[in-house]
Amino acid sequence: MVRQPTPEDKFSFGLWTVGWTGTDPFGGPSRPALDPWEYSDKLAELGAWGITFHDNDVFPFDADLATKQRLTGRLKDAADKAGLVIEMVTTNTFSHPVFKDGGLTSNDRGVRRFGLRKVLQAVDIAAEMGASTFVMWGGREGSEYDGSKDIHAAFERYKEGLDTVAGYIKSQGYDLRIGLEPKPNEPRGDIFLPTVGHALALIAQLEHGDIVGLNPETGHEQMANLNYTHALGQAMWSGKLFHIDLNGQRGLKYDQDLVFGHGDLISAFFTVDLLENGFPGSPDAPRYTGPRHFDYKPSRTEYLDGIWDSARACMSTYLMLAEKAKAFREDPRVREAWDRAGVLELAEPTLGAGESVTDFLAADDGFDPEKAAQRDYGFVQLQQLALEHLIG
Amino acid sequence: MVRQPTPEDKFSFGLWTVGWTGTDPFGGPSRPALDPWEYSDKLAELGAWGITFHDNDVFPFDADLATKQRLTGRLKDAADKAGLVIEMVTTNTFSHPVFKDGGLTSNDRGVRRFGLRKVLQAVDIAAEMGASTFVMWGGREGSEYDGSKDIHAAFERYKEGLDTVAGYIKSQGYDLRIGLEPKPNEPRGDIFLPTVGHALALIAQLEHGDIVGLNPETGHEQMANLNYTHALGQAMWSGKLFHIDLNGQRGLKYDQDLVFGHGDLISAFFTVDLLENGFPGSPDAPRYTGPRHFDYKPSRTEYLDGIWDSARACMSTYLMLAEKAKAFREDPRVREAWDRAGVLELAEPTLGAGESVTDFLAADDGFDPEKAAQRDYGFVQLQQLALEHLIG
Amino acid sequence: MVRQPTPEDKFSFGLWTVGWTGTDPFGGPSRPALDPWEYSDKLAELGAWGITFHDNDVFPFDADLATKQRLTGRLKDAADKAGLVIEMVTTNTFSHPVFKDGGLTSNDRGVRRFGLRKVLQAVDIAAEMGASTFVMWGGREGSEYDGSKDIHAAFERYKEGLDTVAGYIKSQGYDLRIGLEPKPNEPRGDIFLPTVGHALALIAQLEHGDIVGLNPETGHEQMANLNYTHALGQAMWSGKLFHIDLNGQRGLKYDQDLVFGHGDLISAFFTVDLLENGFPGSPDAPRYTGPRHFDYKPSRTEYLDGIWDSARACMSTYLMLAEKAKAFREDPRVREAWDRAGVLELAEPTLGAGESVTDFLAADDGFDPEKAAQRDYGFVQLQQLALEHLIG
Amino acid sequence: MVRQPTPEDKFSFGLWTVGWTGTDPFGGPSRPALDPWEYSDKLAELGAWGITFHDNDVFPFDADLATKQRLTGRLKDAADKAGLVIEMVTTNTFSHPVFKDGGLTSNDRGVRRFGLRKVLQAVDIAAEMGASTFVMWGGREGSEYDGSKDIHAAFERYKEGLDTVAGYIKSQGYDLRIGLEPKPNEPRGDIFLPTVGHALALIAQLEHGDIVGLNPETGHEQMANLNYTHALGQAMWSGKLFHIDLNGQRGLKYDQDLVFGHGDLISAFFTVDLLENGFPGSPDAPRYTGPRHFDYKPSRTEYLDGIWDSARACMSTYLMLAEKAKAFREDPRVREAWDRAGVLELAEPTLGAGESVTDFLAADDGFDPEKAAQRDYGFVQLQQLALEHLIG
Repeated sequence: MVRQPTPEDKFSFGLWTVGWTGTDPFGGPSRPALDPWEYSDKLAELGAWGITFHDNDVFPFDADLATKQRLTGRLKDAADKAGLVIEMVTTNTFSHPVFKDGGLTSNDRGVRRFGLRKVLQAVDIAAEMGASTFVMWGGREGSEYDGSKDIHAAFERYKEGLDTVAGYIKSQGYDLRIGLEPKPNEPRGDIFLPTVGHALALIAQLEHGDIVGLNPETGHEQMANLNYTHALGQAMWSGKLFHIDLNGQRGLKYDQDLVFGHGDLISAFFTVDLLENGFPGSPDAPRYTGPRHFDYKPSRTEYLDGIWDSARACMSTYLMLAEKAKAFREDPRVREAWDRAGVLELAEPTLGAGESVTDFLAADDGFDPEKAAQRDYGFVQLQQLALEHLIG
Repeated sequence: MVRQPTPEDKFSFGLWTVGWTGTDPFGGPSRPALDPWEYSDKLAELGAWGITFHDNDVFPFDADLATKQRLTGRLKDAADKAGLVIEMVTTNTFSHPVFKDGGLTSNDRGVRRFGLRKVLQAVDIAAEMGASTFVMWGGREGSEYDGSKDIHAAFERYKEGLDTVAGYIKSQGYDLRIGLEPKPNEPRGDIFLPTVGHALALIAQLEHGDIVGLNPETGHEQMANLNYTHALGQAMWSGKLFHIDLNGQRGLKYDQDLVFGHGDLISAFFTVDLLENGFPGSPDAPRYTGPRHFDYKPSRTEYLDGIWDSARACMSTYLMLAEKAKAFREDPRVREAWDRAGVLELAEPTLGAGESVTDFLAADDGFDPEKAAQRDYGFVQLQQLALEHLIG
Repeated sequence: MVRQPTPEDKFSFGLWTVGWTGTDPFGGPSRPALDPWEYSDKLAELGAWGITFHDNDVFPFDADLATKQRLTGRLKDAADKAGLVIEMVTTNTFSHPVFKDGGLTSNDRGVRRFGLRKVLQAVDIAAEMGASTFVMWGGREGSEYDGSKDIHAAFERYKEGLDTVAGYIKSQGYDLRIGLEPKPNEPRGDIFLPTVGHALALIAQLEHGDIVGLNPETGHEQMANLNYTHALGQAMWSGKLFHIDLNGQRGLKYDQDLVFGHGDLISAFFTVDLLENGFPGSPDAPRYTGPRHFDYKPSRTEYLDGIWDSARACMSTYLMLAEKAKAFREDPRVREAWDRAGVLELAEPTLGAGESVTDFLAADDGFDPEKAAQRDYGFVQLQQLALEHLIG
Repeated sequence: MVRQPTPEDKFSFGLWTVGWTGTDPFGGPSRPALDPWEYSDKLAELGAWGITFHDNDVFPFDADLATKQRLTGRLKDAADKAGLVIEMVTTNTFSHPVFKDGGLTSNDRGVRRFGLRKVLQAVDIAAEMGASTFVMWGGREGSEYDGSKDIHAAFERYKEGLDTVAGYIKSQGYDLRIGLEPKPNEPRGDIFLPTVGHALALIAQLEHGDIVGLNPETGHEQMANLNYTHALGQAMWSGKLFHIDLNGQRGLKYDQDLVFGHGDLISAFFTVDLLENGFPGSPDAPRYTGPRHFDYKPSRTEYLDGIWDSARACMSTYLMLAEKAKAFREDPRVREAWDRAGVLELAEPTLGAGESVTDFLAADDGFDPEKAAQRDYGFVQLQQLALEHLIG
């Protein structure tokens, strides 16, 4: 049996994850909602280290200031008492129909102003709660029809919004970084920052991009038919992996938000391997040290017990995979397979130290392409070794 | 009937498109190969303005220098005579098995050096041919198995390779820009620059990124389940739409390379609308003025006549769509629908001119979210207007 | 401009389509619900011929008998007055959480009995309303996890349920046929009858399969990455196309339920061509003569006007496509392209009349495969002709 | 370490699997071809029980009768000597360009006759080789464009072809059954029998359908975004799982043919669980007792050693999964989770023994839907138990 999680594992959960009551496009809730502190107390009991929330997970959309303060205060107290960190806070700019065409990129300027204000207010809450990350998921920033959006203007407004928020964080002296969360679709037909790549590309155009990074979600990249571990790798290489949303997805369909590991298991293994052990041949490359945050949903077929079974399963699977990834890295057969495959060789620059292009072009490497073409990389065998560690 | 294309339309074709002989994973060629100049002569006759090629579309992988010069020279002469521009040249670093694990990011350093040299030699050819764009498609830069690649090192090597090539272009004083061509998969399980976003993100990390941009292909973005027109829009907003590959794809499957318009037709309409008419509400935004380049394949069921039918179809469809997009933009009903939908309103900054965040947070917009939520954007009606122009 | 639809066009709409209030997985309603007869009155005004509904579109899940009768009666009166046919009725066995693991195939026998009873009661309503089709969409019949279902037992129960319903229809002497509606996923991770093929295969195992057929939905087949027109063709060839759900879907994602034609437009053209004109070379093959039923959703960005814009758009697009399909079939260039492509030749049996296998194997056709391989089918040109008719 | 496979495990391989030389749409072979008997000898050495082949894996397309007999004879001798069963034979009606529009459903009747004859001749070879299954994969039976095919005629021809072949098998007294292999696309844009469901539906219309069943391939169903284990389940329920093609696929893309288990690992676990242990609650349901046949490709990055590494990996993964599935079934916690989930309860008929519909409708089950809605099925916990067995 796998060991119990502890706060040292830095597991955190969104309140909206365990708090999802099962409403989906074809059915109403299948279980009642609890109070925010009931979720957090139970998560602490299960071994979680932190919690996260959207503003409207804690107080209603139309709450007045006193209500907001009372409810966030009560949650903060509960978290403190339970020993939980509120590590991330985010805004809901997608549920109320005022945001039906987006918050920061709605065609309606009044809505944009309202949305931007809501985001800024949530930044204040994040700071008060002691959060280190402020996630922005632009789930309604997008379109169903190409003709309904001026894409140039949309990116201008997205940039304006993000720079305003990041500038505000700096001006207030908050110790907060923004984590953008890409998603290709759902609830919009096409969302503007569909993948980690698109978000990194937008960040590169920001004035205050230094405090803006990524919060990539497993299932979201997979909904774009892409490799999540590769996405994490490019984000880390770019110095932008600020936060992470772990879950499971089974193919190209609606956002399933399954328990971590209940989707593509081999991919989950390599995700954990990267998070825990870093890049195999690049010891000086950036490492991820942030929370292991789960953004999943207990299946609608579950009632209250199933909520906690599933939260436990997320942590337990991560711990099992971490243990296996460690053994994988330490196995001498893996080192041999790496040699055969040239895995570490890729860290060596292609040009020699100080080699100019002119020298390079003139150099005779004595390279025989026909012979080199016969190299047997052994990638399949290396994968099989990983599989044996995973299930062996 | 649609009018004949003329060189003013700036249509260009890869020699490998009309030159594809029909070999696929399950079958051999279904028609013979012609000489490069036979393809270019015929394309000129059909009204094309330019051609493009991979080095090994014109000379064999193992050709000696004299052969290379003879064959590229002969093609250049033929193109000149036919009045065709050789607007783009690219390298093949994917067909020969030496590149089975990539060219610039192969785990094998010898292969990387060989690949980089091949690319640099093709840059020289591009300059000799008078091309303005040098496309780099890293079709083999990727992996099937996460464990076979150190992703950090892979991006380091990709950066090293691209900066070397871009630096060489500058040092030689060539009037060439690099166009990266993203693709999510095929022939590798996961390719490193899977989408326009990921390529833009890499470019932002380059030393010589100023001359590196994008060559987005319709079907490639669609193979990542993404919106091609949105991808073009983000590339243009980033000032990086250097070249374009138009074709057709029907869903999430192998790379079909159908005739432009024979895939997602409504998307093709909006692609042409953007290329021809720019962003609707951003008259000062960057415009695309480069070639209308087709990267497609005549279906394997066709013999020689079908090659030319299909090349004609690409141009003809583009011209029909351009005409319809023009009428769409000029239709007063569309202007009304834009007003209802707020399409032009998105270009207006969210903050007022000179409005500080402090002022903004303090301002009372008198905004009623419940009322604003009742705005009827009329996006469906706007789409229907587009459809009526498209098929009406 | 396209002509107004008339009852002769046999257009019908589900009450749940125009009645969708915009609730999705990430947001609440964006417009109010109207009374059932308000929807039907307006649809009649727009030119619709019929309406359809789920039991719980008209009365609440927990309504008593008197309420059910009052509300269905009132709707029937309104429909009669407006000249609308209630052509199809269906049951909702997916919204209430009791059905969270399915209705006919829930692991819980009590639920199955409750679900089956609800279906049978809705059959009575369908008969009272004068409907000719009773659709069964098993949206919750499925699983997220392979281990949670005994698939053999699930098919046994599905068969038991369908045979019970079909047997009941016969025993009551109702003039009703059942239309199964396949869908690959959403709201379940994997639904048991994912495609038209799987449903046809199940029907072949039924005792009362003679009155059980298909109600294929455009977007549902496309969510399985499949060709909708092919699906209709196989259903028609099997004599099982009993009803149809037309809408639009843009790729592999959540069920979009766009306006018909706002998804894959070329596919929609060929769908209409098949429905209106039949198979090109098989004049004696079964034809579809049932309702042209739309199962779509007005986008959540629309308020009340947008509902009717979108309903109009569905009918208008169908009429435009029908007109174009007619012209396509009558174009002499198409007949020529058919000859070149052998489209009509496929209707000719492969064996000669009375030719035995022995004779066939012994016969010398004088066939030269190398020569035959050079046939230029001209499929691309034929497709381009269709495109020219579609957008010309 | 996992034990060595033995003939009792009934593992078999297609000669074209280990024999794939690496040619793909973007590159030539990456390793040389061996003689057929070299592959079979080595497979026997690795512990395989059987081999399978296409006619043209053993002799060229244009071979004369003597050559055919000499080469198949030599292979048969080698197999006999190595103790290998030639358990399945199939025809290649997809590689030669004569089949570019299909074999049995080509628009060209001459091609159809040629194709049908080739199939019948391969049936004779299958019988001579002692095979028990004759697989038919109609990879080229399909279209890229809806307008190019009369779908009704296509199904008529498919039926004619299959009935001719099945009738021939019967008339010759061969002890052979036909296994249809569905695939959604590649090499055609849309293939006619895209999934297990569509093939079952066609079989139901055949005259000689009793000896026609399915050969479902893991990756093929997954390319249609579908659940492979569900597909096997429906085929078994229909009494039609005649043969099986195991491999791995990572999402919606080209046909990857990875090692079994290197795709969706959890799905592979449940596939093996079903094949080895049958349906959990239906002990009298049909079981699969045929070969465990692999239809995969050693990755193109591998040279000769990688071929055998990958063949070993297929068998080794299967054996590991079989062992884990056995332990899963025997775990008392699983039995408890089954009870909670009602897994075995689904085998109980919904109606009581002898209960009429009239009785059923009149019965009062005392069922409270609100209470039943609170059942906590524990599906997530059951899945987690499976995961713990899989990787624990």
